[in-house]
Amino acid sequence: MTEPAYVAVDWGTSSFRLWLIGKDGGVLAERRSGEGMTTAARTGFAEVLNSHLSAIDAPAGLSVLICGMAGAKQGWVEAGYLDTPAALLDIPAAAVRIPGVEADIRILPGLAQRDPAAPDVIRGEETQLLGAAAELGDGDHLVCMPGTHSKWVRLSGGRVEGFSTFMTGELFDAIAKNTILSHSIAEAGPVSGGSDAFRAAVSRMVKKPALATSQLFSVRAGALIAGLMPDDAKARLSGTLIGLEIAGALSLVAEGTPVALVVSGGLGTLYGEALAAAGLAPVVIDADTAVRNGLAAGAKALWSL
Amino acid sequence: MTEPAYVAVDWGTSSFRLWLIGKDGGVLAERRSGEGMTTAARTGFAEVLNSHLSAIDAPAGLSVLICGMAGAKQGWVEAGYLDTPAALLDIPAAAVRIPGVEADIRILPGLAQRDPAAPDVIRGEETQLLGAAAELGDGDHLVCMPGTHSKWVRLSGGRVEGFSTFMTGELFDAIAKNTILSHSIAEAGPVSGGSDAFRAAVSRMVKKPALATSQLFSVRAGALIAGLMPDDAKARLSGTLIGLEIAGALSLVAEGTPVALVVSGGLGTLYGEALAAAGLAPVVIDADTAVRNGLAAGAKALWSL
Repeated sequence: MTEPAYVAVDWGTSSFRLWLIGKDGGVLAERRSGEGMTTAARTGFAEVLNSHLSAIDAPAGLSVLICGMAGAKQGWVEAGYLDTPAALLDIPAAAVRIPGVEADIRILPGLAQRDPAAPDVIRGEETQLLGAAAELGDGDHLVCMPGTHSKWVRLSGGRVEGFSTFMTGELFDAIAKNTILSHSIAEAGPVSGGSDAFRAAVSRMVKKPALATSQLFSVRAGALIAGLMPDDAKARLSGTLIGLEIAGALSLVAEGTPVALVVSGGLGTLYGEALAAAGLAPVVIDADTAVRNGLAAGAKALWSL
Repeated sequence: MTEPAYVAVDWGTSSFRLWLIGKDGGVLAERRSGEGMTTAARTGFAEVLNSHLSAIDAPAGLSVLICGMAGAKQGWVEAGYLDTPAALLDIPAAAVRIPGVEADIRILPGLAQRDPAAPDVIRGEETQLLGAAAELGDGDHLVCMPGTHSKWVRLSGGRVEGFSTFMTGELFDAIAKNTILSHSIAEAGPVSGGSDAFRAAVSRMVKKPALATSQLFSVRAGALIAGLMPDDAKARLSGTLIGLEIAGALSLVAEGTPVALVVSGGLGTLYGEALAAAGLAPVVIDADTAVRNGLAAGAKALWSL
């Protein structure tokens, strides 16, 4: 077996993922748990990390590179932000070292966009971008990273020119549970691919994004007067929010800018279909692989590993 | 004192308002309570109405004209909808009579827009429109009726050509309470007029409505990295949602269409300021007066009162 070289950690708000990486760059061991920032802030970040390192018998003193919410103000140690425009290759050098421990444990910074009209922050996705950069190559790219807070990043020659966070996933939950629309979609299953109602809602938003909150009410009105069924109602809600996000992101780039979709799991299908409904054919990059590649790029830059 | 001629009732989801109208058209007595449809569906609609009629010693057998949610499916008796395009003057004749009672008690219908791309319903506001019609006069008008579900109606020569419901008020509550933005605005007071943050948020939406859900996230990011204070954060949330509504409504009419604002209470200030920030100078019509005038127009048409 190859000797361990370093440990890579993606530490989100509600998830923890750790990989033990060998000197040949291969994954020697992997751990996944729900001990994200929210949990670790109570139980202790060092304790969570050490318990996982013990579980895989990692050699003592191994260097650890972390990205994500562990570097937030409420995290382990605040890792701050690089301001946009920011070169992806400048991210590793801005990592912050955990003080008072012998091992070299560092947390990568987030990115901040200090535009008064559109202040925005990213934490974790910058590492996915670093990992996806090689695959994307130079030139201009619009990178979509779907999620609770979807991020759309404008890349130019390996530099983050700017980005926008759309609250799509969180809004979907808040609206589905806490508004009158809940009556129309309570009995629906999860929104999946292949729904005409979903695609039509996306198309309407791409054409007329200004009507977003009226289209949301149409989910209720459609159920009242047009026999809109729960599954289609829920798909219409989802398509409206995702379509609005796509319209917003496209409004900030030149027409024809290549689009990349960095995603893992079920959201990939949904966003793939939404982007197709908007007339886009994105390059798809696996988000799990991208974050590991980003941490590898960081480890290489910091420790020549 | 003038003799009573009829009773006018505006029966909403959560509010009940009754006026005893004299033969000269003046208001002889008024009642307001929280016994809206939601309450009355439990305690009985006839009981609620009778208790208020007793309280003002209304003569037995007086005719009663009702508008609003009492005519919804979950209301007293379903009063259905007139389909758009609909002439305002056709509304009274479509009123539905309460069966099994001696007095002539009728509920006015709502309006339905049976457009598959934008199904929509109105119930109650059609009566405000009927009451505002004389003041508006003929020609084309875009009428804004703010609220939990803001209605924007496109009128042409006394006909409702179409309308759009924006879930602005309900979304504001759902987002303020149930998303990450709650952290940034929890300590804020009510949003009032005179806020630069509010006006700037409206202007941004009128210019770039597609960025709505990203502007929502900027409320949080602004608090994190740009020192956005709670009052300004809340004003930014409100201005984003109201500005998006204005952008959507304007997208459906010819430039220069006269705008009217039918509103009562504090929302009038906020929407007046939002419309001004969008470069509009609306005619302002009091909503309370409009609904009473609308019921009067209905009573006149139905009973020559």
